[in-house]
Amino acid sequence: MLDKDCILDHVAVAVKDLEKSVKIYEDMGLSFSKEREVVESQGVTTAFAAMDENAHLELLCPYGEDGPIHKYLAKKGEGIHHMCFKVPDVEKKCQELREKGYVLLYEKPTVGAGNCLVNFVHPKSTGGVLLEISQKLK
Amino acid sequence: MLDKDCILDHVAVAVKDLEKSVKIYEDMGLSFSKEREVVESQGVTTAFAAMDENAHLELLCPYGEDGPIHKYLAKKGEGIHHMCFKVPDVEKKCQELREKGYVLLYEKPTVGAGNCLVNFVHPKSTGGVLLEISQKLK
Repeated sequence: MLDKDCILDHVAVAVKDLEKSVKIYEDMGLSFSKEREVVESQGVTTAFAAMDENAHLELLCPYGEDGPIHKYLAKKGEGIHHMCFKVPDVEKKCQELREKGYVLLYEKPTVGAGNCLVNFVHPKSTGGVLLEISQKLK
Repeated sequence: MLDKDCILDHVAVAVKDLEKSVKIYEDMGLSFSKEREVVESQGVTTAFAAMDENAHLELLCPYGEDGPIHKYLAKKGEGIHHMCFKVPDVEKKCQELREKGYVLLYEKPTVGAGNCLVNFVHPKSTGGVLLEISQKLK
C-alpha cells in the first residue's frame, strides 16, 4: 500500500564517467533528460532519468578532486550512493526521527538540487543505507 | 520522460535483521505488507513496501548460513544490493544487452519471486550496480 507521505523521489548512483553511465542506463531502457545540472555544493554534475511516476535515477559524477562523491568513489568505487524519499514536511520528519534516535547529517535541512529542502539520515542509523529526505519548496 | 518499457520494479536492500529493518523504513514513512515471502533459491526471507506507483522496497534477509545474500552481508555488510527494472520481454532484452557486450548472470532467464522471469546484469558491466531485469509472467 503506497503511503503518499513517503514516496521514492530518486535513487542516486555515484559514477566516474557521466556520459558512459548515461549510455549504460539508456541501454537498460531508461530515457534521460538532455540537461546536466551542476550541484556546486556537492562538486558534481548530475543526469536524471524517470523510473516511475515520481521516482528518478540520479547519476552523480564529480567534476573535480573534491566533495563527498569524489571521496565516496575513491573509497568505495562506483555504486548506489543513496535513496531519497519525498515527505510533506522535512523539518517535522527530522524532529520525529531524532526523537527515535536516528542521526541526521545536518542540524537544519538545507536547500538541495531542484529547489528542495533536504536532510540525510546517517547510514549507521539505517542499516547501512544513506537515506535522504526531501520536501519540494513552493 | 517515463519510458513504459523500463520501469523501476524494486530496490533491494540486504539486511541482517528483517523486522528491525522493517521498523527503520516504517519510521521513514513506508508501509509494509504483512506477508513475509521466503525465496528458497536465494536463502532469504523478504518484506515489501510500496515506494511509488510501481516501485517497491524489498528487504532481503538470509535465514541460514548459505546463499548469495548471506555471502554479500559477510563480505560487504548491510546495504543496497540491487535495482530491478520491469521490461516487456526479458529474453529479448538479454539478447540485446549481450549483443552490446553486457554480462548476464544466467544463460537463460529464471523464474523469480512473484511469478516473474528474471535475469541479472553483472555489476562489472554496469558501473558497479547489480541490475535485475524482470518480466511479469501471465
